[in-house]
Amino acid sequence: MSEAPCQTEETVGLFAGQHVLAELSGVSADLLDDEQFLKHALGEVLTQADATVLEVISKKFDPQGVTVLALLSESHASIHTYPEVGSVFVDVFTCGTRAKPALAVQLLADALGAAHVSTDLVTRGVKEHVA
Amino acid sequence: MSEAPCQTEETVGLFAGQHVLAELSGVSADLLDDEQFLKHALGEVLTQADATVLEVISKKFDPQGVTVLALLSESHASIHTYPEVGSVFVDVFTCGTRAKPALAVQLLADALGAAHVSTDLVTRGVKEHVA
Repeated sequence: MSEAPCQTEETVGLFAGQHVLAELSGVSADLLDDEQFLKHALGEVLTQADATVLEVISKKFDPQGVTVLALLSESHASIHTYPEVGSVFVDVFTCGTRAKPALAVQLLADALGAAHVSTDLVTRGVKEHVA
Repeated sequence: MSEAPCQTEETVGLFAGQHVLAELSGVSADLLDDEQFLKHALGEVLTQADATVLEVISKKFDPQGVTVLALLSESHASIHTYPEVGSVFVDVFTCGTRAKPALAVQLLADALGAAHVSTDLVTRGVKEHVA
């Protein structure tokens, strides 16, 4: 079992989180089909954004495209790439106030050299308690 | 490599998906802390909703709570449980028109005996092409 940082003495029972849903476009097709690069990059940006990465899994699709899922202490993150159109869906969902999901998305956009970034922040659960 | 059902001859390059973000409440704390039950249940409801489950991972947290992530041919699904308040966050994100993310969430709510279900459907990517 792993410790749940969102269930500390202060936050236990606090059913709340922040979910950033993003679309990046204008990304190199080669990068978006590079499973190992994407897996490493997602783990790195999550750590830089103060999330705790517990496990990362990935899948390369035929004829193109990659999915990466990261299981976090704070919830999860995902990427789904479409190399043929230079675009990728990104999700970063975190509970608590330590991890910075929007920063993780921005760092990933930088790592991919995305020309365009579109993000939506969804506050989930008990809204009045989310910073 | 696995075949990508959302990159068939008809849909290749179609950067689009449907994402259901849900919150279930009024669920038994015991069920929400039962990692094996949750892992099995999520896989089952996704299959029943015509999604293709490629891999499922999970984590049990201390002192309570479980995360399950499912990597789908069609994108991903997740659950994050809060047994102490009888609530769970659910996400089902699918590309293409075959899988039925809202049905998967409803079947999961049924399997958990949830008293309340709140869902939001977010259409992602190229909106005019999503059914």
